[in-house]
Amino acid sequence: MHHFTAASDVTDLPALLAKAARCKADPLQWSTLGRGKTLGLIFFNPSLRTRLSTQKAAHNLGLQCIVMNIGTEGWQLEFEDGAVMNAGTAEHVKDAAAVMGRYCDIIGVRSFPGLKDREEDYQERVLEAFKKYAGVPILSLESATRHPLQSLADLLTIEEYKQVERPKIVLSWAPHPRALPQAVANSFAEWIRASEYDLVITHPEGYDLAAPFFAGHTVTYDQNEALKDADFVYVKNWSSYRQYGQILSQDPSWMITEEKMALTNQGKFMHCLPVRRNVIVADGVIDSADSIVLDQAENRTYAAQAVLATLLGK
Amino acid sequence: MHHFTAASDVTDLPALLAKAARCKADPLQWSTLGRGKTLGLIFFNPSLRTRLSTQKAAHNLGLQCIVMNIGTEGWQLEFEDGAVMNAGTAEHVKDAAAVMGRYCDIIGVRSFPGLKDREEDYQERVLEAFKKYAGVPILSLESATRHPLQSLADLLTIEEYKQVERPKIVLSWAPHPRALPQAVANSFAEWIRASEYDLVITHPEGYDLAAPFFAGHTVTYDQNEALKDADFVYVKNWSSYRQYGQILSQDPSWMITEEKMALTNQGKFMHCLPVRRNVIVADGVIDSADSIVLDQAENRTYAAQAVLATLLGK
Amino acid sequence: MHHFTAASDVTDLPALLAKAARCKADPLQWSTLGRGKTLGLIFFNPSLRTRLSTQKAAHNLGLQCIVMNIGTEGWQLEFEDGAVMNAGTAEHVKDAAAVMGRYCDIIGVRSFPGLKDREEDYQERVLEAFKKYAGVPILSLESATRHPLQSLADLLTIEEYKQVERPKIVLSWAPHPRALPQAVANSFAEWIRASEYDLVITHPEGYDLAAPFFAGHTVTYDQNEALKDADFVYVKNWSSYRQYGQILSQDPSWMITEEKMALTNQGKFMHCLPVRRNVIVADGVIDSADSIVLDQAENRTYAAQAVLATLLGK
Repeated sequence: MHHFTAASDVTDLPALLAKAARCKADPLQWSTLGRGKTLGLIFFNPSLRTRLSTQKAAHNLGLQCIVMNIGTEGWQLEFEDGAVMNAGTAEHVKDAAAVMGRYCDIIGVRSFPGLKDREEDYQERVLEAFKKYAGVPILSLESATRHPLQSLADLLTIEEYKQVERPKIVLSWAPHPRALPQAVANSFAEWIRASEYDLVITHPEGYDLAAPFFAGHTVTYDQNEALKDADFVYVKNWSSYRQYGQILSQDPSWMITEEKMALTNQGKFMHCLPVRRNVIVADGVIDSADSIVLDQAENRTYAAQAVLATLLGK
Repeated sequence: MHHFTAASDVTDLPALLAKAARCKADPLQWSTLGRGKTLGLIFFNPSLRTRLSTQKAAHNLGLQCIVMNIGTEGWQLEFEDGAVMNAGTAEHVKDAAAVMGRYCDIIGVRSFPGLKDREEDYQERVLEAFKKYAGVPILSLESATRHPLQSLADLLTIEEYKQVERPKIVLSWAPHPRALPQAVANSFAEWIRASEYDLVITHPEGYDLAAPFFAGHTVTYDQNEALKDADFVYVKNWSSYRQYGQILSQDPSWMITEEKMALTNQGKFMHCLPVRRNVIVADGVIDSADSIVLDQAENRTYAAQAVLATLLGK
Repeated sequence: MHHFTAASDVTDLPALLAKAARCKADPLQWSTLGRGKTLGLIFFNPSLRTRLSTQKAAHNLGLQCIVMNIGTEGWQLEFEDGAVMNAGTAEHVKDAAAVMGRYCDIIGVRSFPGLKDREEDYQERVLEAFKKYAGVPILSLESATRHPLQSLADLLTIEEYKQVERPKIVLSWAPHPRALPQAVANSFAEWIRASEYDLVITHPEGYDLAAPFFAGHTVTYDQNEALKDADFVYVKNWSSYRQYGQILSQDPSWMITEEKMALTNQGKFMHCLPVRRNVIVADGVIDSADSIVLDQAENRTYAAQAVLATLLGK
């Protein structure tokens, strides 16, 4: 594994999941692996659980962390090749990334999409520039189109809770007052495919994900049909990919309620958090015994730890 | 001790003070106590000495620190139970706190009062929510109504400097151009009571602290009378509790001057810092040999270290 | 060495350079030197490579780092002696620095010039106040008039790349859209003098550095003449010292191009970064094999490590 930015970066997913489970069972077993090494965490956008869990994972490996909040602390970066930089941007990403690569053994990057220009967002220019210029492994802390550490933690959580070999897993859209990225939904679909589970995706018309992400999965506009007999219900809002970045629906009937969960096979409720309570999901569902959102959050640490250990050569 | 948010959380104050003194004498004696453990420091408001001293205390214990500046780095939190979160708040405190509790073994929280709604401030909803939902010990880094790490450091400093068994200790209000919380004064009064010293509190009319804090102490509007023969003069501004959050006086005659200190028994000058020089206190007093403000600041480290060690089970 | 704020603080420069080279050869050789000690990094202005490299240097020495971004995280400081602090400033630097000195064994300070009042900037009041009041060694992370960690890294890089005993070193001004400090240029001139090399400084009329910095060096307004047979070409913009803080020229003919580098003795291109590409320097130069800007950046770590080790008594 050279980088960790998408499911396709992982050559042996079962082994990676097993490694994450081992990290959880004994977090300090590789506590000197990162000795003398530095993890740079570059945030173009704010972060709470990603930062905390990744810092904790690094600590567990004896890896030093340096956090940079670009934007509030740093510079405006230039991305155009050959630009005459006599205006707003103070440093070209090719220099900034290369410099960070001289200080850091691994660089984590968080960069959200603008949700204005689909082509630009899906080119992942920030992440790709770091991969191209930094000279060290790049760890995605959520990029414009994917959130792989979240998905790995989600899979680890499913492994912990599944009762049957091939559980029924559902990804359901739910309403939200603001336009959100497709990254978590894209990644979940991508990683479920990589783990060879089936996935049913349900959302209102116009909310189809990009084809490479939903390909091979079942898609339906009938949420109740999708939820029927589900073992895991992963809920998430995203803005439209087709009418890019737009909110096409805030239909409250898509909120996950206890009535809807009653359609499932005592399904586990999953969400990446933060979550808008009583908009995305009713209190009664997220506060129930079948809600495993905190396990997902906790597993972020061990997902990150397994990935960091792998990038360090373990 | 489950949490550290008020004097009442401490079961054996003399033992805690002795532990702080031991930390000061040999800061690295428990340098592996926190191995593999994480202290999260959540700042809803800015901090200089609290952050530096608590981080240093954690380092001395081998405890990893993760700092979050909520507000500049994080999310707006929802505090209402059952809220339909379709407006400004992005995450409910019950989820945010519970998630942090999955990453952190102890969580430190700083949250100032709004000074608009007395009932809301004195309910300590931020601190109480973290205590309720985080599932791990909560360390107050100054809350709406108390600043216990400061008070513990203040007591440690008094122990170091006192010449008699029961020194005369005075808490004096002094003027300030901005409306400040009552937290430091409340806490000092509370901890002096817990340590079974007597306290004389002096302030202009209208500046009485909340009854549970001044109860049992002597209160006078005559500053000179209060200062007479004092061994320790703790000076601090606070806004009115009665006319909540208001500045009722900026009377410069309440500033602590060399003339006023001449009334004392060569009293030690104390302040929690930061201090407005020549408004709260004349340069000649704070720069004198009887000023022990830097010792108070230094002792913040050892107060925090003793508390963290206790929360870690030492 | 008591502080590290200017070339004159260094008593044995060759020894310091040798120490930096040793740190680079074996970064973890003194990995317990800083055990139980704390480095405070106080940023009045933002920083990327200085912060990253200094944190990495500290990690290599086992020294704990605490970062404070004053301004975004902290207080407005008062600098006037005897000020009646009833307005904007919340803490006097004499108290803030003294308190930090109680928590930190070394304090790094970054404070840029205002570029409005030359006398004020060149008095270095922030740095001098910390030196006066903190009671611990002060490490400049770039001050109003100097950037000594950069210069030390630059010298280390020159030592690595020089082909002859006494290379021809040129410092050339280049255009920039914003008014920049003189600090990097001042420091480079100062440290080149301390290392007993010759320096040719070239800039448009009106851009002379302050006399103590250019004294002893050759100064010419003819860039091509300066570049002739140069072994090292250090490029940097600065605003005018004489017409203080002003931009007197944005003449694009001063940009370093491949044609200009052809005048040199296959000279190495140096810049402290961040750099405005195609304004300061053409892509073809900075991307060439003779560009050593990334080595300069990397050497920031070992310059800082050698200085920190020295301040810790190694």
